[in-house]
Amino acid sequence: MLVSQIGEFGLIDRIAGILPQQCAGVIKGIGDDVAVLDTSGPEYLLATCDIQVEGVHFMRDVITPYQLGRRVAAINVSDIAATGGDPRWALVSLAIPADMEVEYIEELYRGMREQMGLAGAFVVGGNVSRMKSAIVVDFTLLGLVAPGRLTLRSTAREGDAVLLTGAPGESRAGLELIRRPELALSPFARQRLLEKHLCPQPRLDEGRFLARSGLVTSMIDVSDGVIGDLSHICQSSGKGAEIEAAGLYLSPDLLEAALAAGAAPLEWALSGGEDYELMFTAAPEAVPELKKMLLEETGISCVRIGRITAGAEVVLRLADGARVVPAAKGWDHFGG
Amino acid sequence: MLVSQIGEFGLIDRIAGILPQQCAGVIKGIGDDVAVLDTSGPEYLLATCDIQVEGVHFMRDVITPYQLGRRVAAINVSDIAATGGDPRWALVSLAIPADMEVEYIEELYRGMREQMGLAGAFVVGGNVSRMKSAIVVDFTLLGLVAPGRLTLRSTAREGDAVLLTGAPGESRAGLELIRRPELALSPFARQRLLEKHLCPQPRLDEGRFLARSGLVTSMIDVSDGVIGDLSHICQSSGKGAEIEAAGLYLSPDLLEAALAAGAAPLEWALSGGEDYELMFTAAPEAVPELKKMLLEETGISCVRIGRITAGAEVVLRLADGARVVPAAKGWDHFGG
Repeated sequence: MLVSQIGEFGLIDRIAGILPQQCAGVIKGIGDDVAVLDTSGPEYLLATCDIQVEGVHFMRDVITPYQLGRRVAAINVSDIAATGGDPRWALVSLAIPADMEVEYIEELYRGMREQMGLAGAFVVGGNVSRMKSAIVVDFTLLGLVAPGRLTLRSTAREGDAVLLTGAPGESRAGLELIRRPELALSPFARQRLLEKHLCPQPRLDEGRFLARSGLVTSMIDVSDGVIGDLSHICQSSGKGAEIEAAGLYLSPDLLEAALAAGAAPLEWALSGGEDYELMFTAAPEAVPELKKMLLEETGISCVRIGRITAGAEVVLRLADGARVVPAAKGWDHFGG
Repeated sequence: MLVSQIGEFGLIDRIAGILPQQCAGVIKGIGDDVAVLDTSGPEYLLATCDIQVEGVHFMRDVITPYQLGRRVAAINVSDIAATGGDPRWALVSLAIPADMEVEYIEELYRGMREQMGLAGAFVVGGNVSRMKSAIVVDFTLLGLVAPGRLTLRSTAREGDAVLLTGAPGESRAGLELIRRPELALSPFARQRLLEKHLCPQPRLDEGRFLARSGLVTSMIDVSDGVIGDLSHICQSSGKGAEIEAAGLYLSPDLLEAALAAGAAPLEWALSGGEDYELMFTAAPEAVPELKKMLLEETGISCVRIGRITAGAEVVLRLADGARVVPAAKGWDHFGG
């Protein structure tokens, strides 16, 4: 059987089946974005990694090395943000062709340093290796979280409201502008959407604030798309969910880009990945206070996009009342 | 300027120049094999990683996926062993072509599980991604060490004896047998040397014992070759060293393979990398007791191969008294 036949998540299931399930010191292991580990210290250790491959995750002629450095760091900071924790230290493994410019590598690390600095974190180790043709960057980020502030994807409760920060789908729109640079768009919208895709800003302060509020029952960062990551929450919580299409915030820039591309903005918002916004759940009665406090504390808005149900599926309720089970399950790196 | 012009260690120097030098919670950062981090817990956190690239570090038709899994885990366990610490948890990033057999990946993780199990450690997370042609495995290993037991490469003292476990150069001999399978060798020697190269056994118990003894002043694992890694000890300790060629243990299997290959066994022993033995320093008067105790406790022999000097170079003293400064600085992944 080939990897392409079972897809990314099928492969992860197979790998999880081989690895031991109960491990000393492991609070959360395989299957979550972030491993949560007990070092016998006052805080839990958080560990996450993300491998970025040239030609798969990025194109060298589209993203500058500085942007790439920021991006790989941001993606991992976003995972730590969703736990409510603090990023601290990173290890970077780099595989590159021997004929690369040293300046390219320096710019890459400048980008990482900058993004890590914004999070109060540092690159403290790693290794470099030769690779025939492509650039591969694997970024491993360690963080710490007080046990009482740890938020997980697996703890959503039936009846909880589902909330989302920011404007989903904008990263997908930015990707479309890279693929089809001929699309006619206002310069400001084009620049914003490209930046959203190339240089996402992780919601670190927001994650910490939400965890501290004590009002959030589960949280995840949106890397696999709204439906994909809500499915992750539902599967690991043993619940279902209903998304109200009318609840999603579709930004003017997103609408402009989708119109230019002849695409459905709702589809981009629901299934476009790599937004790195936070999706979280809370009791319905806590929602008004939570929205108000998040805006006051961080300047970031969130909207209510649905609710957790007793079911096992993520169902989409359209504005006309029709209920559909969306096929799009988010990004799958093997197209399985 | 190209990466191939400054080499692996030149590139690491450039990267270190960009990253901040003083970071909160960092006991040892860039430049060591293992980052040593203070989580405010009772033990220091250890973090190391190693990226293995098909076609550079391994060939798919030479090493089985199970052996590859053991090998990538072993390489990292060896780094933790040299600190005197305990391996605990690993994250694995994998990039593979979509047309790979799922069974290959399962065997790879079985190998990792097995090697980690021997160390009392577990794979607890990671991620998988598509890659056009080659397999890339990045293995990040976390460990813990009591602050009083941490051994570093940077604390060798002038006059210390330099000691080495095992039989250096055997991994290099195994590599030669892979490159030139036509070489005539006794079947047992061939099998042992191939295993030494493909499935190295990290010296974990030995590292823990040596750290616990309180007699070791510095330690490193031999991945870059005896000269290469002694140079790392010397550079980070601000010292020099003298190796006595006659002190090295050249195993019968190594001699047989070098003879068949028309190669110099001493050169393989000094500059062949990937032995994953432990090299350490201690006061000369402690050597007899240390050798005896290590053998009794772990069954592994070590030999005295030289001493730390006030100089700045690693000098080799041949059996006839001639002193040479060896050119070979060990493995450089960019051939710089």
